[in-house]
This record gives sequence, C-alpha cells and structure tokens, in this order.
Amino acid sequence: MADKPSIPKGTRDFTPLEMTRRNFIFDTIRKIFRTYGYLPIETPAMENLSSLMGKYGEEGDKLLFKILNSGDFRGGLTQEEWGSIPAARLGTMISEKGLRYDLTVPFARFVVQHRNEISFPFKRYQIQPVWRADRPQRGRYREFYQCDVDVIGSDSLLNEFELIRIMDQVFGALDLKVVIRLNNRKVLAGIVEVIGEAGRMIDIAVAIDKLEKMGLEKVMQELEEKGLKRDSLQKLGPVLEMMGDTRAKLEFLEGYLEGSPIGMEGITEIRQLYAYLGSDPVEAEVELDLTLARGLNYYTGTIFEVKSAEVPMGSVCGGGRYDDLTGIFGLEGVSGVGVSFGADRIYDVLLQLERFPRRDHMDTRLLFVNFGQEEARYIFPILRQLRSAGIATELYPDEAKMKKQMSYAHTRGIPFVALVGAQEMKEGLVTLKEMETGTQERLTTEALIRRLS
Amino acid sequence: MADKPSIPKGTRDFTPLEMTRRNFIFDTIRKIFRTYGYLPIETPAMENLSSLMGKYGEEGDKLLFKILNSGDFRGGLTQEEWGSIPAARLGTMISEKGLRYDLTVPFARFVVQHRNEISFPFKRYQIQPVWRADRPQRGRYREFYQCDVDVIGSDSLLNEFELIRIMDQVFGALDLKVVIRLNNRKVLAGIVEVIGEAGRMIDIAVAIDKLEKMGLEKVMQELEEKGLKRDSLQKLGPVLEMMGDTRAKLEFLEGYLEGSPIGMEGITEIRQLYAYLGSDPVEAEVELDLTLARGLNYYTGTIFEVKSAEVPMGSVCGGGRYDDLTGIFGLEGVSGVGVSFGADRIYDVLLQLERFPRRDHMDTRLLFVNFGQEEARYIFPILRQLRSAGIATELYPDEAKMKKQMSYAHTRGIPFVALVGAQEMKEGLVTLKEMETGTQERLTTEALIRRLS
Repeated sequence: MADKPSIPKGTRDFTPLEMTRRNFIFDTIRKIFRTYGYLPIETPAMENLSSLMGKYGEEGDKLLFKILNSGDFRGGLTQEEWGSIPAARLGTMISEKGLRYDLTVPFARFVVQHRNEISFPFKRYQIQPVWRADRPQRGRYREFYQCDVDVIGSDSLLNEFELIRIMDQVFGALDLKVVIRLNNRKVLAGIVEVIGEAGRMIDIAVAIDKLEKMGLEKVMQELEEKGLKRDSLQKLGPVLEMMGDTRAKLEFLEGYLEGSPIGMEGITEIRQLYAYLGSDPVEAEVELDLTLARGLNYYTGTIFEVKSAEVPMGSVCGGGRYDDLTGIFGLEGVSGVGVSFGADRIYDVLLQLERFPRRDHMDTRLLFVNFGQEEARYIFPILRQLRSAGIATELYPDEAKMKKQMSYAHTRGIPFVALVGAQEMKEGLVTLKEMETGTQERLTTEALIRRLS
Repeated sequence: MADKPSIPKGTRDFTPLEMTRRNFIFDTIRKIFRTYGYLPIETPAMENLSSLMGKYGEEGDKLLFKILNSGDFRGGLTQEEWGSIPAARLGTMISEKGLRYDLTVPFARFVVQHRNEISFPFKRYQIQPVWRADRPQRGRYREFYQCDVDVIGSDSLLNEFELIRIMDQVFGALDLKVVIRLNNRKVLAGIVEVIGEAGRMIDIAVAIDKLEKMGLEKVMQELEEKGLKRDSLQKLGPVLEMMGDTRAKLEFLEGYLEGSPIGMEGITEIRQLYAYLGSDPVEAEVELDLTLARGLNYYTGTIFEVKSAEVPMGSVCGGGRYDDLTGIFGLEGVSGVGVSFGADRIYDVLLQLERFPRRDHMDTRLLFVNFGQEEARYIFPILRQLRSAGIATELYPDEAKMKKQMSYAHTRGIPFVALVGAQEMKEGLVTLKEMETGTQERLTTEALIRRLS
C-alpha cells in the first residue's frame, strides 16, 4: 500500500500560500465583472462528448479527456472491432462524457438549454477549471482555470468597448502593464477575399496565428504547402508586414479592402471602437494588429488578445465576437462577444514580477499557548469572542513544550501569541506577546480585541 | 449539428440565482473556517487511479469515474484479453486517472507528498467538487461539492471539540436547527470485543449504519447472514436498543464494556468531550448515538454526523478521527480528525425552509437607458465613477425601444434606471428613476453615488 504518492502530470496541488495568491486574482477579476453587471453561472465538469466533439477542430478532439462509461463499457463491441477501429473513434464508443475543454462551448450549450429562463442581453461570467490532454510544459497545464466574461444577445459594439474597459481595469487592479491587441475577423475575411482565397479563411487564420512564433517566411511556406496560389501569397505579404500606428494601418486597409464590403465593415467597426476609446480612454495600450487571427474558428468580428508588456509570456487574456456560437446547439442568430482571462498565466507573471501584495492576514492572527485543561477552559469564551470579532485565532491543541508551540507560531507566521497562566486567570487578563518585537502586555479581552482588530 | 443540448444525468448547471445562494453557503462556511485558523488548499480533479482504488471499499471502486488514457489507450491489450478480462479490471488497464471521489483521500495524499513543507498540526480546509458514478436520485448527484475541514498531526480531543464548535457555528450562521450526533469507534471496537466478534468490526459497523433506515430486525438478520453467532447477536441487542440521555448511556456502557480496555478508552474520550461542552456549551443538541457507525472504515475514534432537526434529509455534515489515514500513502503515525459539510444537501434544506437571505445586491443596481451614441459618450465617465465606487452599473448595449430596455431592468430585478437626454447633458445631471415606486429625481454624479451606496 505504501506507494510514493504523486499526481497526474500537468496537474498541480495548491498550497495555502498559492491559494491566497490565486484567490487574490480571482477576487479581483470577480469584483470587476460584478460592477459591470455580469452574473455568475457554473456548468458541470463533465459534458456529453457529443456537445464537445467537433467544436475545437481535429486537434481539439484529440485533447479532450474522455470519461470511460460505467459498468461494462464494452457494450456490444466485438473483439474484432476492438482490434480494428481507430483509437479516436473507439474512444467515443466506450465514453459518452468528456471533461470540459473551455468555458465558451459549455456557455453556448447553457444558453440554448436555458433560453426560456434567460433575459437577453445575457451578461454572464464563469470562473472554473478546464482540462486539456496537451503535452505539459512550462506555463501549460492539463488542468487550469479560465475566467470568462461574455455578453450574448446584443451586437452593439458598446459590448466590445466594455470588454476593453474590463480588461484594462483588471490588469490595472493587478498592477500589470499590458498591451491589448485587437483585430477584426471581417477584415481578415476581406483580406482573403481580396487575395482571391475567400474559401481558405480558416487555413489562413491558423497560419497567421503562428506569425509571431515562426516568422513570416515559414508562415508563407506553410500557406504555400496548403495550396495557396503564389499570386495570393504575394498580395497577402504587404498586409502581414504592415507596421506603423493605427491610423496608418487603417488608411492602408481602406485602400487595400476597397472592393470587399465585409472588409470595409470590419474597418468601420474598428474605427467605431477607437472612437469610443477616444472619448473614454483606457490605461493600457490598445494596438491594432492585423496579424492577430486567433485559431478558433467561431469568431466572426472583433478579436482580442492581451500580453504582458513586462514579461515574455503567452497571452494572458483573449477572446472576440462570435455570431453563430449557439447555432451549433440549434439556436441561430444570437450574437455574443466575450473574453477569457488565463488565471494561471497571470499568476506566473505576477510571481515573476513579485507583484503579489504582501498578505499579512492570510491566516491566524493570534495563537493561545496550551498550558493545560484548566487554562483551556478559561480560554474557551475568549476564543469565541475573538472569532466573533472576525479575528482568526487558534488554541494550540496539544500540551506540548513551550518551544514547540512557539516554533509553530513562528513557522506559520502568526504575529501574536497569548499566554494565560494562574496569574492571568486570577486577574481576568491575557498576556499578549508580539512575535516580531517580543514586547508583552497584559490586556482584558475587550482590549485584546481592540488591539487585534 | 443541431442536437438538442443536454448535460450528463446527475450533473447540474447553476443559474445566477442558484450561484448566489450557493455562494452564500460557501462564504459562510469559509469565513468560519478561517476564524479558527484553517488554511485553504486545492488538489487536482484527476488523481492517479492508484491513489483512489481500494480506498473506498469494493463498492467505491465501482463508483469511480475513470479517465480514458490519451492516444491509443489499447496499449498492448490483445483482442482476447479485451474479450475475457472482467470490465472492472479492464477499465484500470486503459485508464490511469480517475476523478476524485472525496476530499479526504486527496488530502491524505497531499499531506504525505508535501510533508516537508507542512508545519504540524496542519489545519486545512478544502471546498471542491467530487464525482461519484452513483445512481442519481433526489438529493444525490454525480457531481457535488464537499467542504472539508481537518486538522492532522494532533491527537488532542480539543480538535474534536473545535469541530463541534465549528459545526454549531456554521449551522447557526445558516439559521438551521441541527442535531449533532456523535459516537466513538473505540466504543464500537469495545462492543464487538465484548460480544466476542472482535474481527468483525467493519461488517458490524456497516450493518449498524443501516439501523435507522432498515430497523433493528433487518439489521440483526443481515448480521446473522454474515455469520455472526446467535449468542453474539443476543449480547449486541441491548446496545442497539439503548435509549435515554447521555448520562444513562454512558453509565450503561461503563458496565457493559468493563472488560474491554479500548471500549473504556472510548468512554473516557466521550466524557472528556462532554466536559468541554459543559464548560463552553453550543447551541445545537449534541446527542450520543451508539448506533452511529459511519460506513467508511478509516475512522478510529470520535465520529460525527449532523442532521437537520427541521426537515427529513440525509446527513448534512459528517466525519471523525482517523489514526492511520496517511498510512495508506506510506506515512505512519499521523492522527487526524475532520468533518465534511455537504453543500448540496444544505442547499436543499435551506431552499425547502425558505431560509435563504433575500439578496438585493446579487447584481446590477442601476441601468442607464441607451438613447444613442452622443448620450453614451456623456455616460461613459459616470459609469466609471459609479463602478469605482463599487456600484454595479450597466449601460443597455443596444439603442432599443424604451419599453424593451425597461422590461430588461424589470426582469433582471434592477432597482434603479438612469435617464440621460439633451436636458440632462446640458445641465450635467442624471435623472434617476426608482423602479418600484416610479419616483424620479435629478442628481449630480456625486449625489447619484451617495444615493446608491
């Protein structure tokens, strides 16, 4: 029985210190979501596999964690089928459920399933873990938290603007400098139209997404391998190399996309967003990045991505508008827009920059030393009063040596220790010792509460 | 693609109203745990199957959700093996991971794995979902939350007393009347010794556990079928039928268990706990119940179970002392004690009794009606100030008909609506309308913030 215990690779335990830091991130995000009127929902960890399959591309299907059916999962599968059917398909024959891969698809499913209880526009937030059978590496986990905020049932650009404000405010509250990059899928659609490859939108978006990582040459090569015409690639080049400020980019695009109504629509939307930002500016830099594509194919309008301006790290937040998301569950014509904050990456950035606030009150403020039964009984009502006043207080449970008890207080970082002996019991007092300075004072319970509040 | 969406049976979505109510329970519990000095941890949803198997009895093994291995999970399994190996074993050959079944075993694993970073006694709490492939029924789900609080590395009975205080305070704060039932496994061990069936402790505990549900006769019958001697059963009878107050029960037991050192130890522990309760009483009734056994076999001392005194419902909290829990992971001699609050059952009780507090502030306090672009720009900085003051505020995103916007405010239960037209913009004011009374007033932004704070 004495296995050396471990946990699955790519997953993590969180110690009290890590929990306190993570909760700082979650609480900051949640509080801001709420002041904008977003409401919390939660969905189950397990979804029907049929709700998940095919929503994240072929690659995504492979990364779904599947739950083996209960009982005799073999069902009617014959030995021959077991031997001959490809693993990917065989997996779906012995698993009906999978762990959620993100919060967006479960949200779409939620909206469709509960559409009669929801009043639109529906503004929801959702903070839950997701699971992906990705190869674990630095900054990439198999279980990680997403903090999603979406509004569905409104196509106003005021929603996009609100999300930019929220991203700005969240990272401001976390004391992180970021760059918010944005683009518009309609502009991308216009570009593929102009270069004469209108049907290859997804391939091109996926390739462009790798631009930062792989460089222009390799992306061009990949696109050529995927069958894009030389001529198309030549027309695409200038867009991907486009530098300069937002005004310059928009002016370039206005010429470039002249013949594409959808492209021009994209430009109008971007201009409108910048107009909002002009009248109500944000702290963060908001950069128009024509090479921003975002791989997932359900986006149809504005797309966002946020990166730290201080630390090289993948994106810490991203999202966009999707016009058809609920369509996959049978509800057409409901447009939504949202972003997802990656709590784990934000954690890593804060840690690296040493930006976590020092938390004095992460736990116990006061430890009563245990001198024995009689003293314990004297302390009971004092404990009750301190805790009622919200002061986290402990009585050391064992009658251990003084040194051991003090060492516990020290290791746990408890700032005060209380001593109660015969003298204190007679006088109705408590001796309070401050650990850092060593100073002692004798106090009534009321004074003790005032001192520690 | 247009599947009618659904979720796996036994799982649930939580709407904003349900979330608010659930968070009321979690926040109440968490706040109390903290004032007693317990620290938060979290463990991954997936554990290695080897950490889970064999920890919950044969029945428990069947109820584990197994995660199908990624890639070609068939490994070296031949077609013949696929056809001939029993499903239960076959499952463990194609799955290395499982979803956690409770929080106690992962906690034991955590303690052993992190023992060099932990200072003992280690007081931790953990609030996370667990998964069981149980047959779903009213009040029983396949995904549900446990709120566990444990102290490990101390065998002082002060810990048991503290847990009773915590249970009392939690249910008091939730405005629920409960009965805390307690017993001691050492007393049970003494009883099986006295009746001459010392080796049958688990069988007897499991049978006694069903006493309330099945009645004495059927339990006796079950024990007889399991091979207990007639003579033993006759000796057992009087204990199970024992009624009366705690003093009477303890006096009876002291005679009954005279020849059993472990039994007498159990009585001493119970007496000590009642002595603590005598000097520092709790609100709830604390009943000594000799028929309380609790099925799980890792308990070795005090055991607890809490039931509503107002609503017939399974136990809403339970736990006990386990001397050997970390032993299953190779760390011997660390005693712990803890209880687990069942958030879902508590939810059901609160709902049935209509005891959830009315939450006026569950969401948006103020909705700005959207009259158009120009007005929106005027409103932007006001929105910013209101939100900075912590007042949840929305601007309706679309320039929809007034009626539609008011209907949104009404459905969402937003208590105030703000109107800004040409006149307000000229005067730098906002017209505030209270939805319930219909009264209107014109306010500066500062006055608006004061009014809504």
